[in-house]
Amino acid sequence: MPDQISELTTNRLSLYLRYLNELYGKGVRTVSSKVLAEQLGVHAALIRRDLSNFGELGVRGVGYVVEDLRRELRSILGLDRKLGVAIIGAGNLGLALADYPGFRREGFRIVALFDNLQTKVGSVSRGGVAIHDIRDLEEIARREAITIAVIAVPEASAREVVQTVVEAGITAVLNFSPGALRVPPHVKLKSVDLTVSLESLSFYLAREAGRSQNGD
Amino acid sequence: MPDQISELTTNRLSLYLRYLNELYGKGVRTVSSKVLAEQLGVHAALIRRDLSNFGELGVRGVGYVVEDLRRELRSILGLDRKLGVAIIGAGNLGLALADYPGFRREGFRIVALFDNLQTKVGSVSRGGVAIHDIRDLEEIARREAITIAVIAVPEASAREVVQTVVEAGITAVLNFSPGALRVPPHVKLKSVDLTVSLESLSFYLAREAGRSQNGD
Repeated sequence: MPDQISELTTNRLSLYLRYLNELYGKGVRTVSSKVLAEQLGVHAALIRRDLSNFGELGVRGVGYVVEDLRRELRSILGLDRKLGVAIIGAGNLGLALADYPGFRREGFRIVALFDNLQTKVGSVSRGGVAIHDIRDLEEIARREAITIAVIAVPEASAREVVQTVVEAGITAVLNFSPGALRVPPHVKLKSVDLTVSLESLSFYLAREAGRSQNGD
Repeated sequence: MPDQISELTTNRLSLYLRYLNELYGKGVRTVSSKVLAEQLGVHAALIRRDLSNFGELGVRGVGYVVEDLRRELRSILGLDRKLGVAIIGAGNLGLALADYPGFRREGFRIVALFDNLQTKVGSVSRGGVAIHDIRDLEEIARREAITIAVIAVPEASAREVVQTVVEAGITAVLNFSPGALRVPPHVKLKSVDLTVSLESLSFYLAREAGRSQNGD
Protein backbone atom coordinates (compact mmCIF):
# COMPACT_ATOMS: atom_id res chain seq x y z
CA MET A 1 0.00 0.00 0.00
CA PRO A 2 1.48 3.39 -0.89
CA ASP A 3 2.34 5.61 2.02
CA GLN A 4 0.36 8.66 0.99
CA ILE A 5 -3.33 8.08 0.36
CA SER A 6 -5.07 11.42 0.38
CA GLU A 7 -8.27 12.14 2.20
CA LEU A 8 -9.96 12.79 -1.14
CA THR A 9 -9.05 9.22 -2.11
CA THR A 10 -10.46 7.69 1.07
CA ASN A 11 -13.62 9.76 0.56
CA ARG A 12 -13.97 8.26 -2.90
CA LEU A 13 -13.38 4.76 -1.49
CA SER A 14 -16.33 5.44 0.85
CA LEU A 15 -18.39 6.53 -2.12
CA TYR A 16 -17.53 3.35 -4.05
CA LEU A 17 -18.35 1.23 -1.02
CA ARG A 18 -21.75 2.86 -0.58
CA TYR A 19 -22.66 2.07 -4.17
CA LEU A 20 -21.26 -1.48 -3.95
CA ASN A 21 -23.42 -2.07 -0.86
CA GLU A 22 -26.40 -1.04 -2.96
CA LEU A 23 -25.42 -3.39 -5.82
CA TYR A 24 -24.70 -6.20 -3.35
CA GLY A 25 -28.14 -5.72 -1.80
CA LYS A 26 -29.67 -6.05 -5.27
CA GLY A 27 -27.73 -9.24 -6.01
CA VAL A 28 -25.57 -7.70 -8.77
CA ARG A 29 -22.45 -9.87 -9.33
CA THR A 30 -19.99 -7.70 -11.26
CA VAL A 31 -19.53 -4.04 -12.13
CA SER A 32 -17.20 -2.24 -14.55
CA SER A 33 -15.27 0.93 -13.78
CA LYS A 34 -17.30 2.51 -16.61
CA VAL A 35 -20.61 1.85 -14.81
CA LEU A 36 -19.12 2.98 -11.49
CA ALA A 37 -17.97 6.16 -13.24
CA GLU A 38 -21.39 6.89 -14.72
CA GLN A 39 -23.23 6.26 -11.47
CA LEU A 40 -20.86 8.16 -9.22
CA GLY A 41 -19.75 11.03 -11.46
CA VAL A 42 -16.05 10.11 -11.09
CA HIS A 43 -13.79 9.50 -14.12
CA ALA A 44 -13.32 5.78 -14.87
CA ALA A 45 -9.55 6.27 -15.05
CA LEU A 46 -9.53 7.79 -11.57
CA ILE A 47 -11.57 4.89 -10.21
CA ARG A 48 -9.13 2.39 -11.73
CA ARG A 49 -6.19 4.32 -10.29
CA ASP A 50 -7.78 4.54 -6.82
CA LEU A 51 -8.43 0.82 -6.74
CA SER A 52 -5.07 -0.16 -8.27
CA ASN A 53 -3.44 1.49 -5.23
CA PHE A 54 -4.50 -1.60 -3.33
CA GLY A 55 -3.41 -4.31 -5.74
CA GLU A 56 -5.20 -5.89 -8.66
CA LEU A 57 -8.86 -5.86 -7.78
CA GLY A 58 -10.40 -5.89 -11.25
CA VAL A 59 -10.57 -8.63 -13.88
CA ARG A 60 -10.05 -7.59 -17.51
CA GLY A 61 -13.27 -7.88 -19.51
CA VAL A 62 -15.36 -8.59 -16.41
CA GLY A 63 -14.74 -5.56 -14.24
CA TYR A 64 -14.91 -5.93 -10.50
CA VAL A 65 -16.62 -8.75 -8.62
CA VAL A 66 -19.02 -6.80 -6.39
CA GLU A 67 -18.74 -9.06 -3.35
CA ASP A 68 -14.94 -9.21 -3.47
CA LEU A 69 -14.44 -5.50 -4.08
CA ARG A 70 -16.91 -4.65 -1.32
CA ARG A 71 -15.11 -6.90 1.16
CA GLU A 72 -11.76 -5.53 0.07
CA LEU A 73 -12.90 -1.90 0.46
CA ARG A 74 -14.38 -2.62 3.89
CA SER A 75 -11.04 -4.10 4.91
CA ILE A 76 -9.03 -1.19 3.43
CA LEU A 77 -11.26 1.28 5.29
CA GLY A 78 -10.89 -0.75 8.49
CA LEU A 79 -14.62 -1.39 8.72
CA ASP A 80 -14.20 -5.08 9.48
CA ARG A 81 -12.76 -4.13 12.87
CA LYS A 82 -15.99 -2.95 14.57
CA LEU A 83 -14.28 0.19 15.89
CA GLY A 84 -15.66 1.59 19.13
CA VAL A 85 -16.93 5.19 19.00
CA ALA A 86 -17.72 7.62 21.83
CA ILE A 87 -19.85 10.70 21.18
CA ILE A 88 -18.91 13.63 23.40
CA GLY A 89 -21.78 16.02 24.05
CA ALA A 90 -25.38 14.81 24.49
CA GLY A 91 -27.03 17.90 23.02
CA ASN A 92 -29.13 17.79 19.86
CA LEU A 93 -26.16 17.11 17.59
CA GLY A 94 -24.65 14.42 19.82
CA LEU A 95 -28.00 12.66 20.21
CA ALA A 96 -28.58 12.81 16.44
CA LEU A 97 -25.12 11.37 15.74
CA ALA A 98 -25.51 8.61 18.34
CA ASP A 99 -28.60 7.36 16.48
CA TYR A 100 -27.33 8.10 12.95
CA PRO A 101 -28.17 4.90 11.04
CA GLY A 102 -25.17 5.04 8.67
CA PHE A 103 -22.60 4.60 11.45
CA ARG A 104 -23.99 1.29 12.61
CA ARG A 105 -24.76 0.13 9.09
CA GLU A 106 -21.08 0.40 8.20
CA GLY A 107 -19.96 -1.54 11.23
CA PHE A 108 -19.05 1.09 13.83
CA ARG A 109 -19.92 0.35 17.47
CA ILE A 110 -21.46 3.47 19.03
CA VAL A 111 -20.47 2.67 22.61
CA ALA A 112 -21.78 5.65 24.56
CA LEU A 113 -22.51 9.36 24.79
CA PHE A 114 -20.65 11.50 27.33
CA ASP A 115 -21.71 14.78 28.91
CA ASN A 116 -20.89 16.84 31.97
CA LEU A 117 -24.50 17.78 32.73
CA GLN A 118 -25.67 15.58 35.58
CA THR A 119 -29.29 15.95 34.44
CA LYS A 120 -28.38 14.07 31.24
CA VAL A 121 -26.07 11.44 32.72
CA GLY A 122 -27.89 8.13 33.24
CA SER A 123 -30.46 8.61 30.49
CA VAL A 124 -30.30 7.20 26.96
CA SER A 125 -30.75 8.46 23.40
CA ARG A 126 -33.91 7.52 21.50
CA GLY A 127 -31.93 4.70 19.87
CA GLY A 128 -30.76 3.45 23.26
CA VAL A 129 -27.21 4.82 23.52
CA ALA A 130 -26.39 5.47 27.21
CA ILE A 131 -25.20 8.89 28.39
CA HIS A 132 -22.24 8.68 30.78
CA ASP A 133 -20.39 11.23 32.85
CA ILE A 134 -17.45 12.69 30.90
CA ARG A 135 -15.32 11.99 33.99
CA ASP A 136 -15.72 8.26 33.28
CA LEU A 137 -14.47 8.57 29.71
CA GLU A 138 -10.98 7.15 30.30
CA GLU A 139 -12.23 4.11 32.19
CA ILE A 140 -15.01 3.29 29.73
CA ALA A 141 -12.76 4.00 26.74
CA ARG A 142 -10.23 1.48 28.00
CA ARG A 143 -12.81 -1.15 28.95
CA GLU A 144 -14.78 -0.84 25.69
CA ALA A 145 -11.79 -0.30 23.39
CA ILE A 146 -13.03 3.07 22.15
CA THR A 147 -10.70 4.37 19.44
CA ILE A 148 -12.74 7.23 17.94
CA ALA A 149 -14.28 10.22 19.72
CA VAL A 150 -16.86 12.38 17.97
CA ILE A 151 -16.89 15.93 19.34
CA ALA A 152 -20.39 17.43 19.40
CA VAL A 153 -20.06 20.11 22.06
CA PRO A 154 -20.44 23.90 21.77
CA GLU A 155 -17.44 25.83 20.47
CA ALA A 156 -16.62 27.19 23.94
CA SER A 157 -16.06 23.70 25.41
CA ALA A 158 -14.37 22.05 22.44
CA ARG A 159 -10.73 22.65 23.39
CA GLU A 160 -11.14 21.33 26.90
CA VAL A 161 -13.08 18.31 25.66
CA VAL A 162 -10.42 17.44 23.09
CA GLN A 163 -7.82 17.48 25.83
CA THR A 164 -9.94 15.11 27.93
CA VAL A 165 -10.33 12.81 24.91
CA VAL A 166 -6.58 12.74 24.24
CA GLU A 167 -5.83 12.07 27.91
CA ALA A 168 -8.27 9.15 27.80
CA GLY A 169 -5.96 7.55 25.20
CA ILE A 170 -8.28 7.97 22.20
CA THR A 171 -6.28 8.45 18.99
CA ALA A 172 -8.85 9.53 16.40
CA VAL A 173 -11.17 12.52 16.69
CA LEU A 174 -14.04 13.55 14.44
CA ASN A 175 -14.86 17.15 15.28
CA PHE A 176 -18.20 18.82 14.49
CA SER A 177 -17.45 21.89 16.58
CA PRO A 178 -16.48 25.11 14.74
CA GLY A 179 -13.06 26.65 15.30
CA ALA A 180 -9.56 25.23 15.13
CA LEU A 181 -8.48 22.50 17.54
CA ARG A 182 -5.00 21.19 18.28
CA VAL A 183 -4.04 17.60 18.99
CA PRO A 184 -0.68 15.91 19.57
CA PRO A 185 0.98 14.33 16.50
CA HIS A 186 -0.09 10.76 17.40
CA VAL A 187 -3.77 11.75 17.30
CA LYS A 188 -5.64 12.05 13.98
CA LEU A 189 -8.13 14.92 13.91
CA LYS A 190 -10.76 15.38 11.23
CA SER A 191 -13.12 18.34 11.32
CA VAL A 192 -16.49 18.33 9.58
CA ASP A 193 -17.75 21.70 8.39
CA LEU A 194 -21.43 21.38 7.52
CA THR A 195 -21.39 24.87 5.99
CA VAL A 196 -19.41 23.56 3.00
CA SER A 197 -22.40 21.57 1.74
CA LEU A 198 -24.75 24.50 2.06
CA GLU A 199 -22.25 26.68 0.20
CA SER A 200 -22.12 24.31 -2.73
CA LEU A 201 -25.90 24.72 -3.10
CA SER A 202 -25.58 28.47 -2.72
CA PHE A 203 -22.98 28.44 -5.52
CA TYR A 204 -25.42 26.55 -7.75
CA LEU A 205 -28.25 29.00 -7.02
CA ALA A 206 -26.00 32.01 -7.69
CA ARG A 207 -25.08 30.57 -11.09
CA GLU A 208 -28.70 29.80 -11.95
CA ALA A 209 -29.63 33.38 -11.04
CA GLY A 210 -26.81 34.66 -13.27
CA ARG A 211 -28.09 32.50 -16.13
CA SER A 212 -31.66 33.77 -15.92
CA GLN A 213 -30.40 37.34 -15.99
CA ASN A 214 -28.42 36.55 -19.11
CA GLY A 215 -31.50 34.98 -20.67
CA ASP A 216 -29.89 31.51 -20.93
CA MET B 1 -17.03 31.71 -15.78
CA PRO B 2 -16.59 28.21 -17.18
CA ASP B 3 -19.73 26.14 -17.42
CA GLN B 4 -18.54 23.13 -15.47
CA ILE B 5 -17.26 23.82 -11.99
CA SER B 6 -17.13 20.57 -10.11
CA GLU B 7 -18.40 20.08 -6.61
CA LEU B 8 -14.87 19.32 -5.49
CA THR B 9 -13.89 22.79 -6.71
CA THR B 10 -16.71 24.54 -4.85
CA ASN B 11 -15.77 22.57 -1.74
CA ARG B 12 -12.23 23.89 -2.06
CA LEU B 13 -13.54 27.44 -2.56
CA SER B 14 -15.39 27.01 0.77
CA LEU B 15 -12.16 25.83 2.36
CA TYR B 16 -10.25 28.86 1.03
CA LEU B 17 -13.00 31.18 2.26
CA ARG B 18 -12.93 29.70 5.74
CA TYR B 19 -9.19 30.34 5.99
CA LEU B 20 -9.47 33.83 4.47
CA ASN B 21 -12.13 34.67 7.11
CA GLU B 22 -9.60 33.65 9.73
CA LEU B 23 -6.84 35.79 8.18
CA TYR B 24 -9.26 38.70 7.75
CA GLY B 25 -10.22 38.44 11.44
CA LYS B 26 -6.50 38.67 12.33
CA GLY B 27 -5.98 41.71 10.12
CA VAL B 28 -3.70 39.93 7.61
CA ARG B 29 -3.58 41.94 4.35
CA THR B 30 -2.20 39.56 1.69
CA VAL B 31 -1.60 35.86 1.27
CA SER B 32 0.29 33.86 -1.36
CA SER B 33 -0.95 30.65 -2.97
CA LYS B 34 2.10 28.99 -1.38
CA VAL B 35 0.94 29.89 2.15
CA LEU B 36 -2.64 28.88 1.31
CA ALA B 37 -1.27 25.57 0.02
CA GLU B 38 0.75 24.89 3.16
CA GLN B 39 -2.10 25.78 5.50
CA LEU B 40 -4.81 23.90 3.65
CA GLY B 41 -2.94 20.89 2.30
CA VAL B 42 -3.89 21.68 -1.31
CA HIS B 43 -1.27 22.03 -4.10
CA ALA B 44 -0.44 25.69 -4.85
CA ALA B 45 -0.93 25.03 -8.58
CA LEU B 46 -4.44 23.71 -7.94
CA ILE B 47 -5.29 26.76 -5.83
CA ARG B 48 -4.10 29.08 -8.60
CA ARG B 49 -6.11 27.11 -11.16
CA ASP B 50 -9.26 27.14 -8.99
CA LEU B 51 -9.04 30.87 -8.52
CA SER B 52 -8.09 31.64 -12.11
CA ASN B 53 -11.44 30.10 -13.13
CA PHE B 54 -12.98 33.31 -11.92
CA GLY B 55 -10.69 35.87 -13.53
CA GLU B 56 -7.43 37.37 -12.33
CA LEU B 57 -7.64 37.52 -8.56
CA GLY B 58 -3.96 37.41 -7.67
CA VAL B 59 -1.22 40.00 -8.05
CA ARG B 60 2.22 38.74 -9.14
CA GLY B 61 4.75 39.02 -6.34
CA VAL B 62 2.11 39.98 -3.78
CA GLY B 63 -0.30 37.06 -3.87
CA TYR B 64 -3.92 37.66 -3.09
CA VAL B 65 -5.34 40.65 -1.23
CA VAL B 66 -7.21 38.92 1.62
CA GLU B 67 -10.14 41.33 1.76
CA ASP B 68 -10.66 41.33 -2.03
CA LEU B 69 -10.34 37.57 -2.44
CA ARG B 70 -12.67 36.98 0.49
CA ARG B 71 -15.31 39.30 -0.96
CA GLU B 72 -14.88 37.72 -4.39
CA LEU B 73 -15.25 34.17 -3.01
CA ARG B 74 -18.33 35.16 -1.02
CA SER B 75 -19.84 36.55 -4.19
CA ILE B 76 -18.87 33.49 -6.29
CA LEU B 77 -20.42 31.21 -3.66
CA GLY B 78 -23.55 33.38 -3.59
CA LEU B 79 -23.10 34.17 0.10
CA ASP B 80 -23.75 37.89 -0.38
CA ARG B 81 -27.38 37.07 -1.16
CA LYS B 82 -28.58 36.10 2.37
CA LEU B 83 -30.31 32.97 1.06
CA GLY B 84 -33.34 31.79 3.03
CA VAL B 85 -33.11 28.25 4.44
CA ALA B 86 -35.88 26.01 5.81
CA ILE B 87 -35.01 22.99 7.94
CA ILE B 88 -37.47 20.13 7.55
CA GLY B 89 -37.71 17.89 10.61
CA ALA B 90 -37.49 19.24 14.15
CA GLY B 91 -35.87 16.15 15.66
CA ASN B 92 -32.39 16.19 17.18
CA LEU B 93 -30.64 16.64 13.85
CA GLY B 94 -32.98 19.38 12.60
CA LEU B 95 -32.71 21.29 15.88
CA ALA B 96 -28.93 20.97 15.82
CA LEU B 97 -28.75 22.24 12.23
CA ALA B 98 -31.13 25.14 12.94
CA ASP B 99 -28.72 26.41 15.59
CA TYR B 100 -25.49 25.45 13.77
CA PRO B 101 -23.34 28.58 14.13
CA GLY B 102 -21.54 28.19 10.77
CA PHE B 103 -24.68 28.68 8.70
CA ARG B 104 -25.45 32.10 10.12
CA ARG B 105 -21.81 33.11 10.22
CA GLU B 106 -21.55 32.64 6.44
CA GLY B 107 -24.66 34.68 5.75
CA PHE B 108 -27.48 32.16 5.44
CA ARG B 109 -30.88 33.11 6.89
CA ILE B 110 -32.30 30.14 8.82
CA VAL B 111 -35.96 31.09 8.42
CA ALA B 112 -37.77 28.26 10.18
CA LEU B 113 -38.03 24.60 11.12
CA PHE B 114 -40.94 22.52 9.83
CA ASP B 115 -42.45 19.38 11.30
CA ASN B 116 -45.72 17.44 11.11
CA LEU B 117 -45.84 16.68 14.84
CA GLN B 118 -48.37 19.07 16.37
CA THR B 119 -46.62 18.77 19.76
CA LYS B 120 -43.57 20.45 18.22
CA VAL B 121 -45.32 23.07 16.08
CA GLY B 122 -45.38 26.46 17.80
CA SER B 123 -42.24 25.95 19.88
CA VAL B 124 -38.72 27.17 19.05
CA SER B 125 -35.20 25.75 18.95
CA ARG B 126 -32.75 26.71 21.68
CA GLY B 127 -31.37 29.37 19.33
CA GLY B 128 -34.85 30.77 18.70
CA VAL B 129 -35.79 29.26 15.31
CA ALA B 130 -39.58 28.76 15.17
CA ILE B 131 -41.09 25.35 14.36
CA HIS B 132 -43.95 25.56 11.86
CA ASP B 133 -46.44 23.05 10.50
CA ILE B 134 -45.07 21.39 7.35
CA ARG B 135 -48.45 22.17 5.73
CA ASP B 136 -47.51 25.87 5.83
CA LEU B 137 -44.21 25.32 4.00
CA GLU B 138 -45.36 26.63 0.61
CA GLU B 139 -46.88 29.82 2.02
CA ILE B 140 -43.92 30.60 4.30
CA ALA B 141 -41.39 29.66 1.60
CA ARG B 142 -42.97 32.15 -0.79
CA ARG B 143 -43.34 34.91 1.79
CA GLU B 144 -39.81 34.52 3.20
CA ALA B 145 -38.09 33.76 -0.13
CA ILE B 146 -36.81 30.37 1.05
CA THR B 147 -34.60 28.84 -1.65
CA ILE B 148 -32.88 26.00 0.22
CA ALA B 149 -34.50 23.17 2.19
CA VAL B 150 -32.42 21.03 4.54
CA ILE B 151 -33.93 17.54 4.96
CA ALA B 152 -33.43 16.18 8.49
CA VAL B 153 -36.23 13.62 8.75
CA PRO B 154 -36.02 9.85 9.25
CA GLU B 155 -35.35 7.73 6.15
CA ALA B 156 -38.96 6.52 5.99
CA SER B 157 -40.36 10.05 5.55
CA ALA B 158 -37.66 11.49 3.30
CA ARG B 159 -39.25 10.80 -0.09
CA GLU B 160 -42.58 12.31 0.85
CA VAL B 161 -40.89 15.33 2.40
CA VAL B 162 -38.78 15.98 -0.69
CA GLN B 163 -41.94 15.98 -2.79
CA THR B 164 -43.53 18.52 -0.44
CA VAL B 165 -40.41 20.68 -0.70
CA VAL B 166 -40.39 20.58 -4.50
CA GLU B 167 -44.10 21.39 -4.63
CA ALA B 168 -43.44 24.39 -2.40
CA GLY B 169 -41.21 25.79 -5.17
CA ILE B 170 -37.88 25.30 -3.39
CA THR B 171 -35.09 24.58 -5.89
CA ALA B 172 -32.14 23.47 -3.76
CA VAL B 173 -32.16 20.59 -1.28
CA LEU B 174 -29.50 19.57 1.22
CA ASN B 175 -30.32 16.03 2.33
CA PHE B 176 -29.05 14.46 5.56
CA SER B 177 -31.36 11.47 5.32
CA PRO B 178 -29.86 8.14 4.22
CA GLY B 179 -31.04 6.51 1.02
CA ALA B 180 -31.42 7.78 -2.54
CA LEU B 181 -33.87 10.58 -3.32
CA ARG B 182 -35.15 11.78 -6.68
CA VAL B 183 -35.86 15.36 -7.66
CA PRO B 184 -36.94 16.96 -10.96
CA PRO B 185 -34.14 18.31 -13.17
CA HIS B 186 -34.69 21.95 -12.17
CA VAL B 187 -33.99 21.10 -8.49
CA LYS B 188 -30.43 20.70 -7.20
CA LEU B 189 -30.04 17.93 -4.62
CA LYS B 190 -26.97 17.43 -2.47
CA SER B 191 -26.77 14.58 0.00
CA VAL B 192 -24.48 14.63 3.02
CA ASP B 193 -23.23 11.26 4.22
CA LEU B 194 -21.70 11.68 7.67
CA THR B 195 -20.35 8.13 7.55
CA VAL B 196 -17.69 9.19 5.03
CA SER B 197 -15.86 11.26 7.65
CA LEU B 198 -15.89 8.45 10.16
CA GLU B 199 -14.58 6.06 7.51
CA SER B 200 -11.62 8.28 6.75
CA LEU B 201 -10.63 8.04 10.43
CA SER B 202 -11.21 4.30 10.37
CA PHE B 203 -8.88 4.07 7.35
CA TYR B 204 -6.21 5.97 9.27
CA LEU B 205 -6.54 3.69 12.31
CA ALA B 206 -6.40 0.56 10.13
CA ARG B 207 -3.14 1.80 8.56
CA GLU B 208 -1.64 2.67 11.94
CA ALA B 209 -2.50 -0.82 13.21
CA GLY B 210 -0.86 -2.33 10.11
CA ARG B 211 2.27 -0.26 10.77
CA SER B 212 2.62 -1.35 14.39
CA GLN B 213 2.31 -4.97 13.32
CA ASN B 214 5.06 -4.42 10.78
CA GLY B 215 7.19 -2.76 13.44
CA ASP B 216 7.31 0.60 11.59
